[in-house]
Amino acid sequence: MALREDGAAALDWVASYLERVRELPALAQVAPGDVRAALPASAPEHGEEFPAVLQDLDEILLPGITNWQSPRFFAYFSTTGSEPAILADLLAAGLNQVGILWRASPALQELEEVTLSWLAELLGLPDGWHGHLEQGASVATLGALAAAREAKPGHVLASDHAHSSVERACRLLGLELRKVPVDDEFRLRPEALELEGASAVVATVGTTSTTSVDPVAAVVERCASAGVWAHVDAAYAGSAMVCPELRWAFEGVERADSLVVNPHKWMFTPMDCSLLWTSRPDEWRDAFSLVPEYLRTTDEGVLNLSEYGPALGRRFRSLKLWAILRCYGREGLQAKIREHVRLAELFEGWVREEPGWELCAPRHLSLVCFRKEGPDEENEALLERVNAGGEIFISHTRLNDRYVLRLALGNVRTTEDDVRLAWDVLRDLR
Amino acid sequence: MALREDGAAALDWVASYLERVRELPALAQVAPGDVRAALPASAPEHGEEFPAVLQDLDEILLPGITNWQSPRFFAYFSTTGSEPAILADLLAAGLNQVGILWRASPALQELEEVTLSWLAELLGLPDGWHGHLEQGASVATLGALAAAREAKPGHVLASDHAHSSVERACRLLGLELRKVPVDDEFRLRPEALELEGASAVVATVGTTSTTSVDPVAAVVERCASAGVWAHVDAAYAGSAMVCPELRWAFEGVERADSLVVNPHKWMFTPMDCSLLWTSRPDEWRDAFSLVPEYLRTTDEGVLNLSEYGPALGRRFRSLKLWAILRCYGREGLQAKIREHVRLAELFEGWVREEPGWELCAPRHLSLVCFRKEGPDEENEALLERVNAGGEIFISHTRLNDRYVLRLALGNVRTTEDDVRLAWDVLRDLR
Repeated sequence: MALREDGAAALDWVASYLERVRELPALAQVAPGDVRAALPASAPEHGEEFPAVLQDLDEILLPGITNWQSPRFFAYFSTTGSEPAILADLLAAGLNQVGILWRASPALQELEEVTLSWLAELLGLPDGWHGHLEQGASVATLGALAAAREAKPGHVLASDHAHSSVERACRLLGLELRKVPVDDEFRLRPEALELEGASAVVATVGTTSTTSVDPVAAVVERCASAGVWAHVDAAYAGSAMVCPELRWAFEGVERADSLVVNPHKWMFTPMDCSLLWTSRPDEWRDAFSLVPEYLRTTDEGVLNLSEYGPALGRRFRSLKLWAILRCYGREGLQAKIREHVRLAELFEGWVREEPGWELCAPRHLSLVCFRKEGPDEENEALLERVNAGGEIFISHTRLNDRYVLRLALGNVRTTEDDVRLAWDVLRDLR
Repeated sequence: MALREDGAAALDWVASYLERVRELPALAQVAPGDVRAALPASAPEHGEEFPAVLQDLDEILLPGITNWQSPRFFAYFSTTGSEPAILADLLAAGLNQVGILWRASPALQELEEVTLSWLAELLGLPDGWHGHLEQGASVATLGALAAAREAKPGHVLASDHAHSSVERACRLLGLELRKVPVDDEFRLRPEALELEGASAVVATVGTTSTTSVDPVAAVVERCASAGVWAHVDAAYAGSAMVCPELRWAFEGVERADSLVVNPHKWMFTPMDCSLLWTSRPDEWRDAFSLVPEYLRTTDEGVLNLSEYGPALGRRFRSLKLWAILRCYGREGLQAKIREHVRLAELFEGWVREEPGWELCAPRHLSLVCFRKEGPDEENEALLERVNAGGEIFISHTRLNDRYVLRLALGNVRTTEDDVRLAWDVLRDLR
């Protein structure tokens, strides 16, 4: 195939897509099976030209795409795959590095170390922590609990609002998960931690339902006294540490045993890219390390990142993170995050002042939890109506046994007009 | 940033790279720390333009790249990130789909189902197996052993030549791994399986050291009688099933409980992309499934692939696999794999006929294990000399307590001349 010619067409496809994505339905408007039914039952016998792939991307796949890149995507945690990282992913695919040990890609290994070090500084973390990239927070949390178990077996503690990956990791590792009650702002109650016989506590800064902020300082203090591993899940919120005025939410994180932050959530990096730091790398490594003969080399004094997680090989994930840090700079990251927080605050104000609507959880960062006063069924129907329209996409959660709507900000292309549109659509004013 | 303009430069970089990669050192010729030392200690305060990233890629990173894309890369398992998949990775990054449940990306979900179904047919697998993509074989094997434990707890059996990920998965899952002896062709001895109280057996088709082929038919038969999960690790070799004449190695796989095959190893797909099939999807799902409220939807009759593995979100990995299947076709995949097997056979013949050299394991597919007659130290020095020259890159293993060289074929750009060059370099004839 002609990489230059086909590549120009692919690049044009992406550029056009991003130019028009605001006008595409935020939520795919297809029924289950539609995409599958439009695809052939078998692979072709003979190779086709790449333009045929692009044509089917347009005609068959695009209608089935939920547009996470849309500035009107307000569901889950809103995110962005931004341009420097998109191009870095192209470069990474072209280079096709397979990081299984240092000599298999010194650049992959050392750029990963350097970007993690840059980020530790940007986020205000202590010097000297071991950092590496994982596929996602679920795998990073699995690693943290495996390391904690290696250090000291026992049960795991987390609030009801902790991410489902904590429960999944406990199931895999055969650990008992004890749920800790939350206060009326959905924060883990540190005085309720049963640390006797515990292996680890997972504290969350920015829970999935409401972005509630567990009291990390109180948790890490108790964990330190009891010799229990404190893992901080800041998958979504952690990127906000780049703004000093938002660091109140992370107080105490510098004394945690491990921390996970997802640039693919709020640092404008496409899937997948998750940052993991630990202040106890030896125990982390002990939980995973096995070096078979066919990977033994004579390279001295190098770290093998494959000794720190369940996977042996790693993609060149740091390349896109590096491109983001280079092309945004500290200032650029701060500006985007501040704008998202400002827009969320604005929306929060509109809800607060609108008769018949209510806020359902404190807004700390860029997520607003709200509902229309009245029964759950009305709110559920409202969500379905709004999402079926395609103009915006929002999601929901359940708080205090009530159905609650969530509006999340996190796309770099979202403007105040987009947020205003969302509010109009929600009130059925369009 | 200007996506079109910067993108054209990035695309040109990749195209030029692939045009000249044969002439670059196959193994990076840097010392540990060189790349790190050339990078600034901190992220920039202000954003830079993308061309600065490309410039540093050339000047700082490229010398630290081990060129997996080189047709003269013969180490580990030789692989290729080929053009259709490179461009598909660009498209995937541009679309930035986050597959957490069906409605989050119907196209991602259904294309993954369809490509897995296409591949099941191409590889001759039974109808009706559940298939999905994982990051890599390590995570897929972790899943298989978790599913096996869910079905019936007990110990795990695998040969000494099974991949290190089996041991790592057992450690994570808290399962005892019992190593099964191999015969003189490095194949698991099925009569030595202690199936009483066992949870799972991992049989490998194409082991990492030598591509030895465990007797899958005998293993699955014994497992079926004993109610033990049979997982087949064909991470490297599985792609060869596309060629009917190579299916002898996979006899019995149709009765396995699960199977992993890595397109990022021998199906010309860049990292990372691993295929997992299971004939027992319910138990697999039971090992992982948790659906929290904020992901519950009213979509009927859809599968949530996030219920089948440790991660919650998934990238649009199927896009590159689909592009490969479209642009190669069955015939194109067969032709490439047959050529790799032919080249390996050719090299094997040269070694066999050369006085002072010996073959060290049967060659089944595209890997040749060999050595120079004489002490290990000479072979170790030979490997270091060859790799330090940069013309080719080979790796080693240890068999019957001897240091053995490995030459792996798997790059679509490798020609007979490249293999001949490798042989000349090994014999110090250049």
